[in-house]
Amino acid sequence: MEIVPDLSKIREAHHRILSQIHVTPVLTCESLNELAGADLFFKCENMQKVGAFKFRGASNAVITLSRKDAASGVVTHSSGNHAAALALAAKRRGINAHIVMPRNAPAVKIAAVKNYGGMITFCEPTLEARENTADAIIADTGAVFIHPYNDYRIIAGQGTAALEFLDVVEDLDYLLAPVGGGGLLSGTAISAKSIQSSIQVIGCEPQNADDAYHSYKTGKIVPSVNPDTIADGLKTSLGDKTFAIIRKYVDDIVLVQEQEIVTAMQLIYERMKIVVEPSSSVVLAAALCGRLNISGKKVGLILSGGNVDMSHFFSSLLD
Amino acid sequence: MEIVPDLSKIREAHHRILSQIHVTPVLTCESLNELAGADLFFKCENMQKVGAFKFRGASNAVITLSRKDAASGVVTHSSGNHAAALALAAKRRGINAHIVMPRNAPAVKIAAVKNYGGMITFCEPTLEARENTADAIIADTGAVFIHPYNDYRIIAGQGTAALEFLDVVEDLDYLLAPVGGGGLLSGTAISAKSIQSSIQVIGCEPQNADDAYHSYKTGKIVPSVNPDTIADGLKTSLGDKTFAIIRKYVDDIVLVQEQEIVTAMQLIYERMKIVVEPSSSVVLAAALCGRLNISGKKVGLILSGGNVDMSHFFSSLLD
Repeated sequence: MEIVPDLSKIREAHHRILSQIHVTPVLTCESLNELAGADLFFKCENMQKVGAFKFRGASNAVITLSRKDAASGVVTHSSGNHAAALALAAKRRGINAHIVMPRNAPAVKIAAVKNYGGMITFCEPTLEARENTADAIIADTGAVFIHPYNDYRIIAGQGTAALEFLDVVEDLDYLLAPVGGGGLLSGTAISAKSIQSSIQVIGCEPQNADDAYHSYKTGKIVPSVNPDTIADGLKTSLGDKTFAIIRKYVDDIVLVQEQEIVTAMQLIYERMKIVVEPSSSVVLAAALCGRLNISGKKVGLILSGGNVDMSHFFSSLLD
Repeated sequence: MEIVPDLSKIREAHHRILSQIHVTPVLTCESLNELAGADLFFKCENMQKVGAFKFRGASNAVITLSRKDAASGVVTHSSGNHAAALALAAKRRGINAHIVMPRNAPAVKIAAVKNYGGMITFCEPTLEARENTADAIIADTGAVFIHPYNDYRIIAGQGTAALEFLDVVEDLDYLLAPVGGGGLLSGTAISAKSIQSSIQVIGCEPQNADDAYHSYKTGKIVPSVNPDTIADGLKTSLGDKTFAIIRKYVDDIVLVQEQEIVTAMQLIYERMKIVVEPSSSVVLAAALCGRLNISGKKVGLILSGGNVDMSHFFSSLLD
């Protein structure tokens, strides 16, 4: 029977993946502190390998496979950072990664998966088609399915970012993480609450994809229906495993508007000089929106990823 | 009589400004190492205060002013990072900064100078109008003119970035810096050659603004005439002070194409997840262009600034 990871399991995961990952920097920015009226600390998972925290969980899942299981490779369906992360983690172990992607996935995402050696199978852009395609690959190859978030190996891996964070910054009053499927938020909450029970762990979510908010408030999983947000990494619904952890450990979920997400993103580029994707900037949007009582507090923010398609911007520069 | 700064003068400048500046991080990136076939180390002056190395020189110049001279304030003509840097340095000392800017300066640059408390006087967009306007302000207020680069206080300040860099990374074979007016390159060359005479100091310049290249090759200052480059910080001509130092200490100047600059800029965003302006990315363009024999070498690159107007990109995100 599977057991929910505790702090010791997350420490084990960290030990396991430490030679594979980047211990990402924690940055501060005076002008953003002034704007927020608080001391902000940013854990830069946008600078993680493959450009997102997802590599932590994927590495942990791949490394923990038995030699026999690993021999058949891994499979997932994702058009996002988990796909690239799993491809690289598998490549590092020398096993196959089968990635099921919708035909309409952005070219830049397809290129990333190919770049890391992932074996792509395209399908129709529906959940049913994705699952059927993955099932067919499993039947054919015996590959192990690695869910993007509803998997304790993944959750334990994602929780390692908060371990590093709290090791560097003491006495945080708040810890803000984005919530999509809940892998990062649930792992973060286990780590943070176990290390320092006084810390307030807050999930940050786009109002246009507010399924985690409603799930949290009503006590049962509300699926994400037609989410329409620029934070494309946060469109997914919670899973039963991530939801149970979030209910137990997370103190609140805050919603932010699309314009707040973009404004926060621009502030991060302009003031911190780092590249983040919209799914990352929801945490700064939450810190600046006035709906959290962070005035004068020490606030940790996890910048989850930095994969954003800026090809139009660069191609326009020489016009 | 003014004396060319030596290493001890640059160390003094560093001591003087250390409480004002950021000691910027040095970053590395495996995938860029692979592309370059060399070990690259990036000194991130894009993360310096006001987003550029210019704050080092401006701080040094403002702090070294006598109390009497400082009382009348400082003045410069610039539409770039020096203007914002001088405004902040003056604000920190509690004195006026008069900034002469052309009427057609980009709104984002004007806003930056105002944000740091600079007192802007607009003029026609010609060198003559800038100089006449600055002269009128000097006659009127007694303000001290602080040239953007042809000034030993500025050169010594800019040389402090290389001090920090070589303190962190030992045994660099090459050190690459952009060259516009030559303040950064000359200060860098004094520091680097004095600390480690074997290091190859290379100026990196857009082919479309190749005045420093021709000045260096012919031995006399060739003015920059109608430079047409996206690297807007590198359009200026060398000054007599910067040129004399560059002739003495710099090993070569390498030219790069516009497309190489943009490609390098995009690589820095995508692979390193940091924001740089085109004037910064010339150094990576030079490292990747194949015209330097850096294969297998340890190469230092100074990323000079990160101020780039991305408002169109952000305003288009929610379209």
